[in-house]
Amino acid sequence: MSDVKEILGSYSDDIINVIVEGLSDITPESLQEASIYLTKAGGKMLRPCLALISAEAIGGKKESAVYAAAAIELIHTFSLIHDDIMDEDDMRRGMPSVHKVWGNGVAILAGDTLFSKAFELICNSERENVSPLQITQTIATVSDACVKICEGQAADISFEGRYDVTEDEYLDMIFKKTGALICAATKAGAITGGASEDIVEIMYDYGRLIGLAFQIQDDYLDLVSDEESLGKPIGSDIVKGKMTLIVVNALENASEEDGETLLEILKNPNSTQEDVDIAIEIFNKYGSIEYARNIAQDNVDEAKQLLEILPDSPSKTALELIADFVLERHS
Amino acid sequence: MSDVKEILGSYSDDIINVIVEGLSDITPESLQEASIYLTKAGGKMLRPCLALISAEAIGGKKESAVYAAAAIELIHTFSLIHDDIMDEDDMRRGMPSVHKVWGNGVAILAGDTLFSKAFELICNSERENVSPLQITQTIATVSDACVKICEGQAADISFEGRYDVTEDEYLDMIFKKTGALICAATKAGAITGGASEDIVEIMYDYGRLIGLAFQIQDDYLDLVSDEESLGKPIGSDIVKGKMTLIVVNALENASEEDGETLLEILKNPNSTQEDVDIAIEIFNKYGSIEYARNIAQDNVDEAKQLLEILPDSPSKTALELIADFVLERHS
Repeated sequence: MSDVKEILGSYSDDIINVIVEGLSDITPESLQEASIYLTKAGGKMLRPCLALISAEAIGGKKESAVYAAAAIELIHTFSLIHDDIMDEDDMRRGMPSVHKVWGNGVAILAGDTLFSKAFELICNSERENVSPLQITQTIATVSDACVKICEGQAADISFEGRYDVTEDEYLDMIFKKTGALICAATKAGAITGGASEDIVEIMYDYGRLIGLAFQIQDDYLDLVSDEESLGKPIGSDIVKGKMTLIVVNALENASEEDGETLLEILKNPNSTQEDVDIAIEIFNKYGSIEYARNIAQDNVDEAKQLLEILPDSPSKTALELIADFVLERHS
Repeated sequence: MSDVKEILGSYSDDIINVIVEGLSDITPESLQEASIYLTKAGGKMLRPCLALISAEAIGGKKESAVYAAAAIELIHTFSLIHDDIMDEDDMRRGMPSVHKVWGNGVAILAGDTLFSKAFELICNSERENVSPLQITQTIATVSDACVKICEGQAADISFEGRYDVTEDEYLDMIFKKTGALICAATKAGAITGGASEDIVEIMYDYGRLIGLAFQIQDDYLDLVSDEESLGKPIGSDIVKGKMTLIVVNALENASEEDGETLLEILKNPNSTQEDVDIAIEIFNKYGSIEYARNIAQDNVDEAKQLLEILPDSPSKTALELIADFVLERHS
């Protein structure tokens, strides 16, 4: 796993340079500072690195994808800033979130600015000899992902207070909210790297599969990680009454009595650690945690199989390692 | 002036169709409704119509610009939705604003969705045989305007409580906040219509000049219109202490005594109608209203002169009429 962090680290400098340069001319200063704040706070840079690695893995140059990659990181950051306002989350990446520091108005604007800059940056890909057609296809890919991110967040909000969410509804929501930008990254890398249409679609599917596994792992970590690695209390999703694949499966399979107990805990915003433990016991009783893990593992296996069509290369190996990393990470 | 409204009306159906179709597949329903709400509420559609008319005026077809035009209207709407949240404006186009109906969370998302859809729509221009290079140039134009809109709104917010704003600072702010999208519209129309680089720049300048005049007229109407046409009380900018070209000029030229009187009124959020009248008296005493009107008129005259390079056509005439309309409108 430390391999993957090293791999991501080896790609991220190029992306950060493009981001810092791209945001350097924003005025007034408060807007610039609010816009660049979360990039400076650091992050895994998983999505943009996936774009560069995908460009290489299909036989192209990573430089071709660097502007699209930076754009994807800006869009990820924009969505974090706006989500934190909506969800009233006060901390992000170990620091006060943007709206806590600058207020909601500037935070909305900082998100909008990053969003705008993202599309400006993709147009700069011509500097790396990406063709206008490839740029247009990249923008279509990225803007489609942006629509899906909004739809996924809106679906997530609409699930609040609903406990009859089906597995399909849940999987569609997380595909949009989390998966869409990950597969936009791998697809954009393939497009700008010069892949054929078939390979572009395969790279999209690889991203979609690991993206779903990524969100399922997030839900899993909320139950089994430790507070220090996770940066938030264990079981916080249960306390918030959030629907996850594990909860959906447990509610579908539990006895009437267990189902009612679980619902009571989910509906109570003041659930205690003891309540969380009871909920986890119910998840285990019906194999719901294992069920979710298996789906995530199947997605990762399928994603790795898709890569077999690519010629062997360090970048292909990196994509395989990243697929495994998605389920091995603890935070 | 009714001519101009008829002209805009004759172009707006095509644009509304593209918008309605483009937003028709958004889910969940609440997000779709919130996203299309302000378009249904109606608006002048000045910006998108300018794109279509510009495409024709440079010798192209209006159809080439229809997706860019729809995108520009979506971006305008997105900025209204987010501005209304920031400015806590509860009414828009005679209806409760989006955040009043659906809450801040969905309103932020509805804005973000329109923004995303805008770039998706521009990519659809290929259906009208716009080339990938023209599409890329259009996206660069529109995303640049989006950055400026954010910067302009941030500058406007940063002016609050500052009474030493200079004329240059003020003009830069309104260029970004209002002018940038208007000249993006005329430029995008020229690009997608197939204009040469020189003509594209001329169309951009035409848009920039009428955009500045448009905002100065807005500030002027706040002082001289009637409450019914304007949809808000006369002098509301004075009560809010907003800096406008008229205020900046008056503060620069007034005697110490008049300047202090004006500042007191601007700083008082509870200014009465009598206070507003005193402020207007000071503006008149120093010719500040006339000064602003003259700058706006000069911009309009210059904009019309720029059009002389274009061959005569109904669309060229429409652009001339629109330039005049900017200063003739009462709302």
